[in-house]
Amino acid sequence: MSTDAPERRTYSYLGPAGTFTEAALAQVPEARGQIWRPVSNVGQALDDVVGNRAHAAMIAIENSVEGGVSSAQDALATIPGLRIVGEYIVPVRFSLVAPPGTTLDEIVARDLVTVAGHPVAYAQCLAWLGQRIPHHEHIVAASNVASAVGMLDGSLPAQVAIAAPGVADHYDVEVLAENVGDNASAVTRFVLVTGTVAPPAPTGADKTSLVAELPKDEPGALLELLEQFSTRGINLSLLESRPIGDALGRYRFVIDADGHVSDERMADALMGLRRFSPSVVFLGSYPRADRRVVHHPDRYGDDAFVEARDWLRGLIAGEPGS
Amino acid sequence: MSTDAPERRTYSYLGPAGTFTEAALAQVPEARGQIWRPVSNVGQALDDVVGNRAHAAMIAIENSVEGGVSSAQDALATIPGLRIVGEYIVPVRFSLVAPPGTTLDEIVARDLVTVAGHPVAYAQCLAWLGQRIPHHEHIVAASNVASAVGMLDGSLPAQVAIAAPGVADHYDVEVLAENVGDNASAVTRFVLVTGTVAPPAPTGADKTSLVAELPKDEPGALLELLEQFSTRGINLSLLESRPIGDALGRYRFVIDADGHVSDERMADALMGLRRFSPSVVFLGSYPRADRRVVHHPDRYGDDAFVEARDWLRGLIAGEPGS
Amino acid sequence: MSTDAPERRTYSYLGPAGTFTEAALAQVPEARGQIWRPVSNVGQALDDVVGNRAHAAMIAIENSVEGGVSSAQDALATIPGLRIVGEYIVPVRFSLVAPPGTTLDEIVARDLVTVAGHPVAYAQCLAWLGQRIPHHEHIVAASNVASAVGMLDGSLPAQVAIAAPGVADHYDVEVLAENVGDNASAVTRFVLVTGTVAPPAPTGADKTSLVAELPKDEPGALLELLEQFSTRGINLSLLESRPIGDALGRYRFVIDADGHVSDERMADALMGLRRFSPSVVFLGSYPRADRRVVHHPDRYGDDAFVEARDWLRGLIAGEPGS
Amino acid sequence: MSTDAPERRTYSYLGPAGTFTEAALAQVPEARGQIWRPVSNVGQALDDVVGNRAHAAMIAIENSVEGGVSSAQDALATIPGLRIVGEYIVPVRFSLVAPPGTTLDEIVARDLVTVAGHPVAYAQCLAWLGQRIPHHEHIVAASNVASAVGMLDGSLPAQVAIAAPGVADHYDVEVLAENVGDNASAVTRFVLVTGTVAPPAPTGADKTSLVAELPKDEPGALLELLEQFSTRGINLSLLESRPIGDALGRYRFVIDADGHVSDERMADALMGLRRFSPSVVFLGSYPRADRRVVHHPDRYGDDAFVEARDWLRGLIAGEPGS
Repeated sequence: MSTDAPERRTYSYLGPAGTFTEAALAQVPEARGQIWRPVSNVGQALDDVVGNRAHAAMIAIENSVEGGVSSAQDALATIPGLRIVGEYIVPVRFSLVAPPGTTLDEIVARDLVTVAGHPVAYAQCLAWLGQRIPHHEHIVAASNVASAVGMLDGSLPAQVAIAAPGVADHYDVEVLAENVGDNASAVTRFVLVTGTVAPPAPTGADKTSLVAELPKDEPGALLELLEQFSTRGINLSLLESRPIGDALGRYRFVIDADGHVSDERMADALMGLRRFSPSVVFLGSYPRADRRVVHHPDRYGDDAFVEARDWLRGLIAGEPGS
Repeated sequence: MSTDAPERRTYSYLGPAGTFTEAALAQVPEARGQIWRPVSNVGQALDDVVGNRAHAAMIAIENSVEGGVSSAQDALATIPGLRIVGEYIVPVRFSLVAPPGTTLDEIVARDLVTVAGHPVAYAQCLAWLGQRIPHHEHIVAASNVASAVGMLDGSLPAQVAIAAPGVADHYDVEVLAENVGDNASAVTRFVLVTGTVAPPAPTGADKTSLVAELPKDEPGALLELLEQFSTRGINLSLLESRPIGDALGRYRFVIDADGHVSDERMADALMGLRRFSPSVVFLGSYPRADRRVVHHPDRYGDDAFVEARDWLRGLIAGEPGS
Repeated sequence: MSTDAPERRTYSYLGPAGTFTEAALAQVPEARGQIWRPVSNVGQALDDVVGNRAHAAMIAIENSVEGGVSSAQDALATIPGLRIVGEYIVPVRFSLVAPPGTTLDEIVARDLVTVAGHPVAYAQCLAWLGQRIPHHEHIVAASNVASAVGMLDGSLPAQVAIAAPGVADHYDVEVLAENVGDNASAVTRFVLVTGTVAPPAPTGADKTSLVAELPKDEPGALLELLEQFSTRGINLSLLESRPIGDALGRYRFVIDADGHVSDERMADALMGLRRFSPSVVFLGSYPRADRRVVHHPDRYGDDAFVEARDWLRGLIAGEPGS
Repeated sequence: MSTDAPERRTYSYLGPAGTFTEAALAQVPEARGQIWRPVSNVGQALDDVVGNRAHAAMIAIENSVEGGVSSAQDALATIPGLRIVGEYIVPVRFSLVAPPGTTLDEIVARDLVTVAGHPVAYAQCLAWLGQRIPHHEHIVAASNVASAVGMLDGSLPAQVAIAAPGVADHYDVEVLAENVGDNASAVTRFVLVTGTVAPPAPTGADKTSLVAELPKDEPGALLELLEQFSTRGINLSLLESRPIGDALGRYRFVIDADGHVSDERMADALMGLRRFSPSVVFLGSYPRADRRVVHHPDRYGDDAFVEARDWLRGLIAGEPGS
């Protein structure tokens, strides 16, 4: 690197080129012109951040059909030194691809068709496959690109592959059918993760991510956790339980709450949660992918918190306190 | 007043000498040797404080049998510039008294006995009177001393009076019977009220008094008010509704909460209440009459609040946040 | 009473004629042409019912300015065998009356005026009196009629009396001023009480009255009591604490809830309350005085309860249970 | 089948022989001597039940390390006509196996080792592999038996396989190491699923499984759902959110509650949930695998419910009711 060239940043993502994760990374303006580093799983992507081999990692966190991505949630809950700084949504569309020159009619005419596909993708195309290619079997691929690559290079003995649409931009495949997913509105939610940094400035349309454990052996503890938010007028958009792993029946909760840590009500709720929970991990406050403005009851606006602090200060000082 | 004499303070109380209120005032070490000013009702006592004619007023706030003293509660809720600085409990015992030389046998032998008594006192002696002097009628007196005085000076046409035991120390009466109250464990709770001052230092056995209104037309508003305390581990020892007065069905709530405003959890709850309620009146934090130490869950100790603030500050600054 | 004449019913009320309680009784269609029996306090009125000397008693239960009538609430909480069957509201207006021939100017011109009045009434006229007759003293009367009667017959040494407007219909008094109360919209709420009977049929605009104690020594018990109603979509119009009387800090709660015991959600809430509370007294379901229709969330309609029971029955029987 | 031979029942399970699911099925006394039908995924197992090809299906529902088995939860939530009738726990232990004659030293000495394994199993052996065979790559297998079979028959180009210990009973493999899993206490929870039947009789140590959706767009809806249980003294041992699938942010909740539908409090809670939730699926009440007796507050025992019903009936009939 010459001294007069600006240093380029590295972004790790689940590769290779063509995956939905790459499509998510393409939504990040700051990542343009930087180094995009494809890795083979979430653990590697986050390791790159922790080990300073990457400035940030783009990872899938939730699918609208399949639910939370457990490995990503567990990694964020347990690896220290990470912060979510952005959220991105990518529509999940699948194409059925084959080696060049193949036609769908040829495939349909076969007695048995072997379909390569990532298990999650395969599960989301079952209705289409059942109707159009009922006589098929499934062979597992590691990603929505690896399915096509394996079919092409022969490492997967398949005639067709379920693949992300971006595959056609990078590999020489025949697209037999587009939108073969069962749910046309399926999306995957991704988050961009860096090392520990101050949260990005609030935009009015923000989200705060947390992981919290419950006090042991207290009936009603989850209710009390939820009240930390409800009594401050904060709505939750996500609440998922994940096993802590030490015993059946012990869970931590992955939480997305509407608002930013710089909002007084969120700061107050976080402090309440910190007092209540034996373990809270703050994962970050960042702009929502959908840019939907967060509304809240008037009584929980910043002014109300500032005014209440002033009032309390006056009470303690012996002032009338309005 | 000469410059070399210390100025004496005035304490207003429901007089005359001999009332339970005087007995409460006698429990205040600071009041010894000061000016005790008997007044005829709660309103006058508090007016003396507001108008700087008295340093403090002793007023009855709750009776263990009859409940809250509405006039006192309403006065504290609506008169600005007052603070409770102490709480005192006086056992409520009643004596049956008569003019000197009278015997109980004489009284019992009459066809009809007229009994002078404050209505609250009379109501608390009904069982005794019904058994021992069934043929009696009741004439209303303004206080537990005025009953005896009126009987003696003839302004009340009664042969006997229900009176506070202290009456015998100040007036020439025959005590026909002691402890004629139906409930031997009855007590009255008094509070000492000054103008707006900083709360007395916490003792570990304190109580905080408040009056709060609910937001209008919100079902569940009372639940949410109570959660401001329960989510901070604070117990309430009193919750009374009092009409706001503008319409049936509109109430304010008189609250006694365990703890002191200098406790972090109480300060936090007060700020929460201030945000939630359209009107909160802080009446003071002061030592409990029973000196019972206030306990709280470990997670709501002061340390937890300090630690949570530090944690939050770190999060916002971009520190790892443990 | 001849055998062919229908037997007349007796209604006890706080008399004498002219009181607000009589005005409440005048609102009861069934009471017309029946025997109206004036008594001197709430206890006597309810005793008449319990002892079968009266079919029903009309008693004041709440004043919009002064709050709940403690003696009435306590009597209903502790005397078994009573049911509220109706609710009536009477505007509270006060007149200043004097012996015939007196003028207001004469009164105002005096150095000192003695005013007879029931303490509650006197408290509600303080502003008017302070402005028009500042030089006055107060003498206590037993009712809003006894004030005028005592002034007329000389048993109360007063020149004027605060009285209910109805007094002028029954006694020869001079009305010096009408509407001398400080709050023009003040009302008193009365209830009609009988022995234990089945509740009157629901009207869609009903109210259910209860008295409940909390389990001992359970923080959060009041919250849990309130949830018995909120989780069934039932709004409370009244919640008052009253001392149980055995010790400071022990309360029972007087509750008015919107709806009728024949509503499924109310029946369910009552059963929930019965399980939760060590002592529940059901005081009755009856039409609201204001005839305001009770609304409830759709999900808590009767149909939902019937449907849920059928569903449960199916589950237990091994039916699919949709 | 001859008419004098009893008909044998079919139990479907994730095969082939040797899987953890087979170990779970081996815990079912009723399944001994019956037909065990290995299938290749949860969907097939449940289809067998719905289509009457099997009496019951054994499926994995939760892993103590990896969490809920999403596909099983989603299938139970959406396929009508199913009931859970039993719960079984199997310790999750992994062995490292190789073709006969191989030694661990030989494997460790290789430059690169290809390890066949089900992704969930591989994830649970990462620490052991990282320490003992750091130079390895992973190839995906469909089950903890298929990994070994694929290695043996050459369809997976691997030198070793992570497999369930039972594999050694059915296939000719060399066990290089036992207990290579990172978490020695890991277990998997299985449920036995039949068509819709009446629940098995309560044992005092039972669990009830449900799936419920929340009313749309109601902040606090989850709190209200949880209160349906807490206000009846019922503890939840599992609460998992699963996407409904129609849009991001829309979830259904998978719930395991302590107790049996024949318990009054559980029946009451289920009816409450039915009224509250737009969609509830009852999955069954059945004995807990751990046989831990369910405790509950006295006030929520069956007697309390029976007594409350009698009390209510009396109130409505006009009886004194206390």
